[in-house]
Amino acid sequence: MDKKFFLGIAVAAAIIFFVAAVATSLPKNTIPAEDRETLYQVSTIDALMQGVFDGIQPVGELKKHGDFGIGTFDGLDGEMIVLDGKVYQARADGAVYPVPDTMTTPLATVTYFESDRVVKTDHQMNLTGLSDALSAQLPSQNMIYAVKIHGTFPEMTVRAIPRQEKPDPTLTIAAKNQSVYTYKNANGTVVGFYTPVFFKGLNVAGFHLHFISDDKKTGGHVLDMTAGSGTVAELDITDGFAMSLPTSGTFAGVDLSQDLSSAVAKVER
Amino acid sequence: MDKKFFLGIAVAAAIIFFVAAVATSLPKNTIPAEDRETLYQVSTIDALMQGVFDGIQPVGELKKHGDFGIGTFDGLDGEMIVLDGKVYQARADGAVYPVPDTMTTPLATVTYFESDRVVKTDHQMNLTGLSDALSAQLPSQNMIYAVKIHGTFPEMTVRAIPRQEKPDPTLTIAAKNQSVYTYKNANGTVVGFYTPVFFKGLNVAGFHLHFISDDKKTGGHVLDMTAGSGTVAELDITDGFAMSLPTSGTFAGVDLSQDLSSAVAKVER
Repeated sequence: MDKKFFLGIAVAAAIIFFVAAVATSLPKNTIPAEDRETLYQVSTIDALMQGVFDGIQPVGELKKHGDFGIGTFDGLDGEMIVLDGKVYQARADGAVYPVPDTMTTPLATVTYFESDRVVKTDHQMNLTGLSDALSAQLPSQNMIYAVKIHGTFPEMTVRAIPRQEKPDPTLTIAAKNQSVYTYKNANGTVVGFYTPVFFKGLNVAGFHLHFISDDKKTGGHVLDMTAGSGTVAELDITDGFAMSLPTSGTFAGVDLSQDLSSAVAKVER
Repeated sequence: MDKKFFLGIAVAAAIIFFVAAVATSLPKNTIPAEDRETLYQVSTIDALMQGVFDGIQPVGELKKHGDFGIGTFDGLDGEMIVLDGKVYQARADGAVYPVPDTMTTPLATVTYFESDRVVKTDHQMNLTGLSDALSAQLPSQNMIYAVKIHGTFPEMTVRAIPRQEKPDPTLTIAAKNQSVYTYKNANGTVVGFYTPVFFKGLNVAGFHLHFISDDKKTGGHVLDMTAGSGTVAELDITDGFAMSLPTSGTFAGVDLSQDLSSAVAKVER
């Protein structure tokens, strides 16, 4: 055996090792298709209605399930907006704050946003008109859609609820102290979802939208808005759903046996 | 540079390559914990109620999401039982058939069964009594549970619905032609789930149980049963839920906006 023999072994082993290393590293950066087309949810809207405000999942974990979505924070401290993989907190003081991965959420819904379809408005409309116009264009009322609307909105009315103290009230009572802000000619992005009627109890049936300005300084839960003619809404058709039920906090003990959908509709508009 | 230098490189590269290869191969054989504690569901109970009987997922794909569960088959052709990773079809003729991976399902729920808690009956009871006794022992009414009861049942009454022809009727109409069989001192396993009230629309709220005999010759959807004193029910506490909505067939067009829960309860008992 001479030097060339060992040189050969070394070179061969190095090549194989390099290929193996590349092959191993690839999947880590690739989100499986079924995860990209899945709406992932922490807890349920009815649990939030009943005052289950304790954060049970860190934002760092939530971000593994999507780069786009909405929710709230531990103690019902403001409105969550997830856009382009970044998480923002619109608080009751009207300002928007960056969110550390360690902050927790009691309720959030996220997905990986990929536009499948575009709907363009042909006249100016408010939130009810926009919801009806979008509904009419959905390929099916029985599917989940992520909704992204970027533009300049003649009027945008958002709310944020201040952090609640123990014992947690119901969402309906907490919302009585909400801060409401109306912005004129607001540049920004509407972020949210449509879920079918049969999701009631789990999520807000119909459209549930939050807003964040382009400068990331203002935002909140959309109570009403004006969409001008030519507003472009992007829809991500989503056939997968995943949900993590809380295994800690007050979730296990609250009464989730009633139909709270009309109370949900009232508190969300 | 001498032989020892290259020998060293070769040995080092070989060791690193071996370790990398072992590390790469490991995850393929391991189901992540979050998948093991997830109830995975194809379509919704309300879609089945409305006559969406077209199979949309092959059993081979379903088995990737669990080794334990229940469901039905394309055309509503009998009752599905998944036990120890094997899929069985209890048909209207009263017999049980093995199921090839290519057969499809319009509705199924599976998980990886791992017993977390055991409930033992202290007297003889029927299905209603058993449901009440188990409900009273659940750590929370708001959680998902897989239920496995192996034993000898003094009486076991099961049904299976014959394959339906197009156009598909509603489940309520299809069930009028169901075959019902009652077995005495039946040795076998009850396989099923408890889902909370807030799952109505998606799944059967409360307990939904199927049965298969130890000899794998008889089984079906449990309409009623007698559980003797000392019957042991194993519960798998499950905090994750995942659902695939159908992207083909008639699902997109059916009316899923009504509350069908009382009709579901009627057809399932």
